[in-house]
Amino acid sequence: MSSTFGTHIRISVAGQSHADAIGVIIDGLPAGFPVDMEALSAFMGRRAPGQNRFSTTRKEADAPEFLAGLLENVTTGAPVMAVIRNTNTRSSDYDNLRDVPRPGHADLTAELKYGGFQDVRGGGHFSGRLTAPLCIAGGIALQMLAEKGIEIFSHIRAIHGVEGEVPDYTPLSLPALRAIAQKPFPVWDDGQGEKMQAEIDRARQNADSVGGIIETAVFGLPAGLGTPMFSRMEGRLSAAVFGVPAVRGIAFGNGFDAAELYGSENNDSFYYDTDGTVKTRTNRCGGTLGGITTGMPLVFRAAIKPTPSIGREQESIRLSKKTAETLIVTGRHDPCIVPRAVPVMEAVTALTVLDALYDHDMNWKKGEKENGK
Amino acid sequence: MSSTFGTHIRISVAGQSHADAIGVIIDGLPAGFPVDMEALSAFMGRRAPGQNRFSTTRKEADAPEFLAGLLENVTTGAPVMAVIRNTNTRSSDYDNLRDVPRPGHADLTAELKYGGFQDVRGGGHFSGRLTAPLCIAGGIALQMLAEKGIEIFSHIRAIHGVEGEVPDYTPLSLPALRAIAQKPFPVWDDGQGEKMQAEIDRARQNADSVGGIIETAVFGLPAGLGTPMFSRMEGRLSAAVFGVPAVRGIAFGNGFDAAELYGSENNDSFYYDTDGTVKTRTNRCGGTLGGITTGMPLVFRAAIKPTPSIGREQESIRLSKKTAETLIVTGRHDPCIVPRAVPVMEAVTALTVLDALYDHDMNWKKGEKENGK
Amino acid sequence: MSSTFGTHIRISVAGQSHADAIGVIIDGLPAGFPVDMEALSAFMGRRAPGQNRFSTTRKEADAPEFLAGLLENVTTGAPVMAVIRNTNTRSSDYDNLRDVPRPGHADLTAELKYGGFQDVRGGGHFSGRLTAPLCIAGGIALQMLAEKGIEIFSHIRAIHGVEGEVPDYTPLSLPALRAIAQKPFPVWDDGQGEKMQAEIDRARQNADSVGGIIETAVFGLPAGLGTPMFSRMEGRLSAAVFGVPAVRGIAFGNGFDAAELYGSENNDSFYYDTDGTVKTRTNRCGGTLGGITTGMPLVFRAAIKPTPSIGREQESIRLSKKTAETLIVTGRHDPCIVPRAVPVMEAVTALTVLDALYDHDMNWKKGEKENGK
Amino acid sequence: MSSTFGTHIRISVAGQSHADAIGVIIDGLPAGFPVDMEALSAFMGRRAPGQNRFSTTRKEADAPEFLAGLLENVTTGAPVMAVIRNTNTRSSDYDNLRDVPRPGHADLTAELKYGGFQDVRGGGHFSGRLTAPLCIAGGIALQMLAEKGIEIFSHIRAIHGVEGEVPDYTPLSLPALRAIAQKPFPVWDDGQGEKMQAEIDRARQNADSVGGIIETAVFGLPAGLGTPMFSRMEGRLSAAVFGVPAVRGIAFGNGFDAAELYGSENNDSFYYDTDGTVKTRTNRCGGTLGGITTGMPLVFRAAIKPTPSIGREQESIRLSKKTAETLIVTGRHDPCIVPRAVPVMEAVTALTVLDALYDHDMNWKKGEKENGK
Repeated sequence: MSSTFGTHIRISVAGQSHADAIGVIIDGLPAGFPVDMEALSAFMGRRAPGQNRFSTTRKEADAPEFLAGLLENVTTGAPVMAVIRNTNTRSSDYDNLRDVPRPGHADLTAELKYGGFQDVRGGGHFSGRLTAPLCIAGGIALQMLAEKGIEIFSHIRAIHGVEGEVPDYTPLSLPALRAIAQKPFPVWDDGQGEKMQAEIDRARQNADSVGGIIETAVFGLPAGLGTPMFSRMEGRLSAAVFGVPAVRGIAFGNGFDAAELYGSENNDSFYYDTDGTVKTRTNRCGGTLGGITTGMPLVFRAAIKPTPSIGREQESIRLSKKTAETLIVTGRHDPCIVPRAVPVMEAVTALTVLDALYDHDMNWKKGEKENGK
Repeated sequence: MSSTFGTHIRISVAGQSHADAIGVIIDGLPAGFPVDMEALSAFMGRRAPGQNRFSTTRKEADAPEFLAGLLENVTTGAPVMAVIRNTNTRSSDYDNLRDVPRPGHADLTAELKYGGFQDVRGGGHFSGRLTAPLCIAGGIALQMLAEKGIEIFSHIRAIHGVEGEVPDYTPLSLPALRAIAQKPFPVWDDGQGEKMQAEIDRARQNADSVGGIIETAVFGLPAGLGTPMFSRMEGRLSAAVFGVPAVRGIAFGNGFDAAELYGSENNDSFYYDTDGTVKTRTNRCGGTLGGITTGMPLVFRAAIKPTPSIGREQESIRLSKKTAETLIVTGRHDPCIVPRAVPVMEAVTALTVLDALYDHDMNWKKGEKENGK
Repeated sequence: MSSTFGTHIRISVAGQSHADAIGVIIDGLPAGFPVDMEALSAFMGRRAPGQNRFSTTRKEADAPEFLAGLLENVTTGAPVMAVIRNTNTRSSDYDNLRDVPRPGHADLTAELKYGGFQDVRGGGHFSGRLTAPLCIAGGIALQMLAEKGIEIFSHIRAIHGVEGEVPDYTPLSLPALRAIAQKPFPVWDDGQGEKMQAEIDRARQNADSVGGIIETAVFGLPAGLGTPMFSRMEGRLSAAVFGVPAVRGIAFGNGFDAAELYGSENNDSFYYDTDGTVKTRTNRCGGTLGGITTGMPLVFRAAIKPTPSIGREQESIRLSKKTAETLIVTGRHDPCIVPRAVPVMEAVTALTVLDALYDHDMNWKKGEKENGK
Repeated sequence: MSSTFGTHIRISVAGQSHADAIGVIIDGLPAGFPVDMEALSAFMGRRAPGQNRFSTTRKEADAPEFLAGLLENVTTGAPVMAVIRNTNTRSSDYDNLRDVPRPGHADLTAELKYGGFQDVRGGGHFSGRLTAPLCIAGGIALQMLAEKGIEIFSHIRAIHGVEGEVPDYTPLSLPALRAIAQKPFPVWDDGQGEKMQAEIDRARQNADSVGGIIETAVFGLPAGLGTPMFSRMEGRLSAAVFGVPAVRGIAFGNGFDAAELYGSENNDSFYYDTDGTVKTRTNRCGGTLGGITTGMPLVFRAAIKPTPSIGREQESIRLSKKTAETLIVTGRHDPCIVPRAVPVMEAVTALTVLDALYDHDMNWKKGEKENGK
């Protein structure tokens, strides 16, 4: 619970925005897996600030230092521990922050919960910076899943109401899906992507911010993954996805749109593909039925709220005096964190899927039907 | 995991639609709480079929039998075990069901996962009937929360695109919110409720089905509940809510709408109320910041898909022959399960909140500031 | 936690000695396993009272009723729920018990913990009767393990200081080990068994009781089971074994005797067996090194205290008056529960081993060395 | 699981003997607790090598570096992350170790489990060195417990069969118990301590090793701690204690001796103390009944095997050639690790007790009896 996650592959995340370091322990990784450090670094880079014109220009050197668990970059079976040193740990000018909570941030609730002992600097443990250790763990998970033929693709589906085209999630789209990660603005449809970027520009010019929607698709999942009720793929994934700051909603397949359809419109018909596997003609369910994977791509969307840090005057309070106070959040902040959250969605999805893969059944009766997976 | 849930208050659910019984063990309930059996029965009744003209007329006597854990209806501290006998357990006419999976149901994925050993009758362990044991546990949790001044209100927010008015979640609305549970069609705005019911009627007449959206509000939560990252209230609640069949999405506060607003529009301003507590002028965040409660009502919506069982011909497959097959789902089925899912939302929310209440911090330093809760 | 156990195969136990029923939900069992009900009944019978002259002659009809999870006695993949009805649920003559706690029982601590709301009748949830549901779950686990070639043998190692001979845990002993379960007094060495029984007789004649030591050996475990630190086989097994009432100690291999040996005497030498597998010449470590199985039999002992219920006057207190009080425990009680605890040790061991078997690693790199298991 | 522990206060341990670092993340610590770094350092020092003439003279600078979770040494509510850099990480001369497993160590089982990918240097993640991070976490827990009036005392109870006197665990003994931690050889009875040290000397002179028994007593526990069945204090503590390498057995109260007593000898009589609290005249049960604390000191013993690393020729195998091989373990090794394991026992006990304290019940009914704690 809290900053720990997973049953078989368990991660424990620590750190605050301005602590000496942020880090993660990953317990349960199998031995013998060679981590591709270059690929991991490239993956981490997609989350790093300064990647495009919408992200803060603060410099962060987010190179993970692996302190344990690897031997010449190969997993040993022992827990993997990695840390990222924070270079900006000066404590100045946070006294006001402790006293005047920023709207939309956890400043107030942390004060209420931790009674004034929380680390307020940069949002402390609630900072988006804590998604970096998630990306270390998730980046390794992505590499492991790739070995099993499982690929995860997240992209920006909408910014401030400007929606991109819906990808056609068939094997034919795989090259195009793989190409998204290379784009500075990771979107399926570059034309709409331009319009989305215009929205972000406009927000920045107004010292404001915008949010958006990230869509994630998982290809190559075996059918039969997930278990009924509280370990449905939906429940597991949402527990992970809400671990990412600023997520306000999650929806699988056609999601909230399903609530507006007739059953006859919403059900996905079954058929046998030429290779003898069962498929669904449509994938409105998003790749799960009863919380268990069908073998079709698992698809979900997450809503990301606009960055709460804005350079405009906002109404707040002064805790020490119990008075009203106005506040302008200073410093450089992303007018939209959606682009940087894209790899984070891939990371937490990968961790969830990897964990779920360990749930498979064993076969207990020789000579009888093998269990699903 | 699987059909178990919770850290402090742990429930384990068992049963299939046509097994001898369905049931639940609730471990961790405190001793000395007198369960109001009449209130529990009334709560269970809201979920039972046959309550209104939209639910199946199959007769179910869903009276829970408490086999252990209570003494004269008072909790003893020992695990509470309750079962509901299934009266309809005949096995006839399910051979076809095993061979021709129903679109939109877990029939196919259960077959893929359990290799033909699953109980297909009535959906087996995937049946909506399994929400009855959730309501036993959740019904007790609701009573316990009421003792602490915490109330949970779910209502139908939309049916097939027809939306109800948004309640004004202030203490002034409490009488009206409390009255919803007494309505045969639990909606805030009866005028819109009539239109929603017309949608359901139309679906039924067409041998079709519709879905909708349920909104849930929790009043009286202490501020400071929840913990960062993976035990945020959002993550916990979504893990529970996706345990309910047919849920396709969940969104907190303004949810997916947040993705269409500017930060300056989406942030909730802080102010001091006349009683000295901090409040937010709006509650777009839905009562949490950083996953921790603000003390304002916690509000979320869940999307429910249209009942997959429809009396229309659908395209499926015959597993034994690996051929295409058409299917008409026979028997009586709710054209819309949203009304019956309303108390279930209250139940899983109550279980989650009760569990989270046990997470509070202890104070370790005399003479210093008390921790938040 | 509490009355729940396991990570992959999770059991949740409920019931009190005099509740309507005791029962268990077993979540996570694979689908397709045919439970041999006759064998299960025979296994349950070994725990039942009245098996030999040392156990209480109270009549208990401990036939489990399977309410869910099985279809024609075959596991469906859904949670298995089984209950045993209590026939003796009358509430008379327990008022004194609530007021005058029995020494050596949980009466006092339950009163302190549950504040007078606990079910005192027959020890409530703390009763040894709660080992019956453990035997339902464990009995199924034993059958599943047998399919994988894993056998578990418990026997009485000592009664009141009279020790039996140490079995030679080699494959040659398997027929003799298998025969123990058929004995009314399950001991390796019948000669010493007679002397042990004489000890029990003497205790009974003196309205007193005796305890003893149960030794358990697991044959056929794969090498490489268990994980470092807190999921060592020792830690897992002890967490399960202390779930059985009256256990006061557990020791693996030569246990406390290891503390009296030189390292040169205590280490087990490695050698290659003729079949090419690595073995140890001795098995002082009890089949684990670093908490991970060696492939040799896993052996441990558990100390069982004498039955606290004795027909002799004991010094206690009267809670209502805060005065001293003497007490004679009436009713029929086993002068020694060790014989009936033997199958319970097999049950909890089986559940632990089955759970651990699900922990195995997956192989992530084609063309490279396969992981241990 | 694995190298993670705890429900409310969760620790995750990482590191190998020769990795860059060993470390721990502690999740769930309450905010506002000022860690006394000097006291922590002194506590860590008791575990460090080179403290007395029996421990290895290898130099280890085990000063923990706190990377996150503290602000000016005060807990913030965020997870605490601490690491200890390993100074000796050179990889030479371990090739032989990988090929010729040391008897009594995890070398072979790690090879079987991790397929040659484990870090063999110094025992890798199985090294006793991993108890240092446990002491960081446990040292903080001890400080927190002290604030609640709970004190934990471990001492050497026996070395190689030489037993010390049994302490009289009454409040009168507290000064003497507190003094043990200051002794270079932490024993209750210095006279017997001299004889124990002579045993260690003799072993060292013979290039051999000895084990022993550590006894731990917890004072100041509230009555009513622990829960039935699988969260009994015994089960929780044993799961933690077996997390320490070389532990072979654990016994509560009179432990295995209980198996040799009559019930009339073993039961502890109740009486009212002058302060109105219930006590037991004796404490053979070791402070728990039914797994729940009585309020008397909780007492248990753990058996520690002799150090498997000995400077004598031992019989092993050469894995690469599948042949027999003899082995002499070189390097400096403690002839007895019992003295250094004493604070580790205190550490894991403190972590378990702290976690259990969070389990308390809430009171749900105003005007009614308060629950036990």
